[in-house]
Amino acid sequence: MRFDIITVLPALLESPFAHSILQRAQKKGIAEIFVHNLRDYATNKQKSVDDYQYGGGSGMVMSIEPFAACIEKLKAERDYDEIIFMSPDGVTLNQSTANELSIKKNIIILCGHYKGIDQRIRDIFVTREVSIGDYVLSGGELPAAIVVDAVVRLIPGVLNDETSALSDSFQGELLDAPVYTRPADWRGHKVPDVLLSGHEAKVNEWRHEQALERTQKRRPDLLE
Amino acid sequence: MRFDIITVLPALLESPFAHSILQRAQKKGIAEIFVHNLRDYATNKQKSVDDYQYGGGSGMVMSIEPFAACIEKLKAERDYDEIIFMSPDGVTLNQSTANELSIKKNIIILCGHYKGIDQRIRDIFVTREVSIGDYVLSGGELPAAIVVDAVVRLIPGVLNDETSALSDSFQGELLDAPVYTRPADWRGHKVPDVLLSGHEAKVNEWRHEQALERTQKRRPDLLE
Repeated sequence: MRFDIITVLPALLESPFAHSILQRAQKKGIAEIFVHNLRDYATNKQKSVDDYQYGGGSGMVMSIEPFAACIEKLKAERDYDEIIFMSPDGVTLNQSTANELSIKKNIIILCGHYKGIDQRIRDIFVTREVSIGDYVLSGGELPAAIVVDAVVRLIPGVLNDETSALSDSFQGELLDAPVYTRPADWRGHKVPDVLLSGHEAKVNEWRHEQALERTQKRRPDLLE
Repeated sequence: MRFDIITVLPALLESPFAHSILQRAQKKGIAEIFVHNLRDYATNKQKSVDDYQYGGGSGMVMSIEPFAACIEKLKAERDYDEIIFMSPDGVTLNQSTANELSIKKNIIILCGHYKGIDQRIRDIFVTREVSIGDYVLSGGELPAAIVVDAVVRLIPGVLNDETSALSDSFQGELLDAPVYTRPADWRGHKVPDVLLSGHEAKVNEWRHEQALERTQKRRPDLLE
């Protein structure tokens, strides 16, 4: 699977893609992640990628031309399944979207900044607008990293233990049950007896009850 | 405002905090962001911070002792308003939570990894559990960066143009209207005439209509 991320701040994305499962997935050849500097595609001599917005108002708007140049170069090299624009206006990311994206082959992600991007980029090129949640961020870079992380960890072979991903919250209908590790007693705070019982059926029953209770209390909407 | 982030992967957070508004906020002395390596607080000779989970099952669980040692050291140095655990089980982050957090002084953020963290850390230390959305990620590091970004940009003086933050999506009840910049005609794709009219009242009316239409179409829940 290949991601091409287009941004004015490529340096911001250096460390997230160089560690943890994203590093591992790239080393194993399961995922390729390329970060493109939008400024390399600026057409004017100032190398600017943004301009004042038509109609007035504060905040700069990212221009169509550099995005168009970068997207068209990439599309000339290979076919893309999706051109995603990270935007608070987009469809909110959930696990089902992550699952759906994890079987795609080539994905471009556009990161907005400043006041936004010229609407024509969205109208002409973008196939899907994705929001990671109802909050405003300073740019689309961290949201792009979130999408890549959520998607890449689902590709078979990326996680060491595949059952780990399958038993995560949101893959089923319930939140996870509480987990505990040693010591069994920490300053008087003890691990629930059932987990020390060695009785597998009882442990599973307790976990299911706890997961159900936690979901009912915290996220009743997931049970509807 | 001060953030202390506790993680097993401090290197993952290097570039997000070294660029854009988070860099600017730190340079201006408006925000301080410290990233602590949980392994520095490991108590055993293997420097391990996780262990098998009680009751069996795949996935390692992060131990209580290193987190407790790091939190207790920080709390001995200053008072904290919040100890946040980034978790898919938490309350979903929204703009109102970001606004609320932006007036706090000192915040600790715990990043989970692997299968999760010992439940006793959550029971004993954590004041607030925050999720950035309904999807599973490989760790709490990127979500912590999302929270810091969403919060720090709201602190007065961080953004160059304060009206920019106030007119963002989610600060009002509507999504943003489309924005456009030069050229007015790109390969036949034109900017709406009204934006070129110079008629401020008409521009504002058009923007309000567009914002309303976009919100009705994409996020009718925001209008309820």
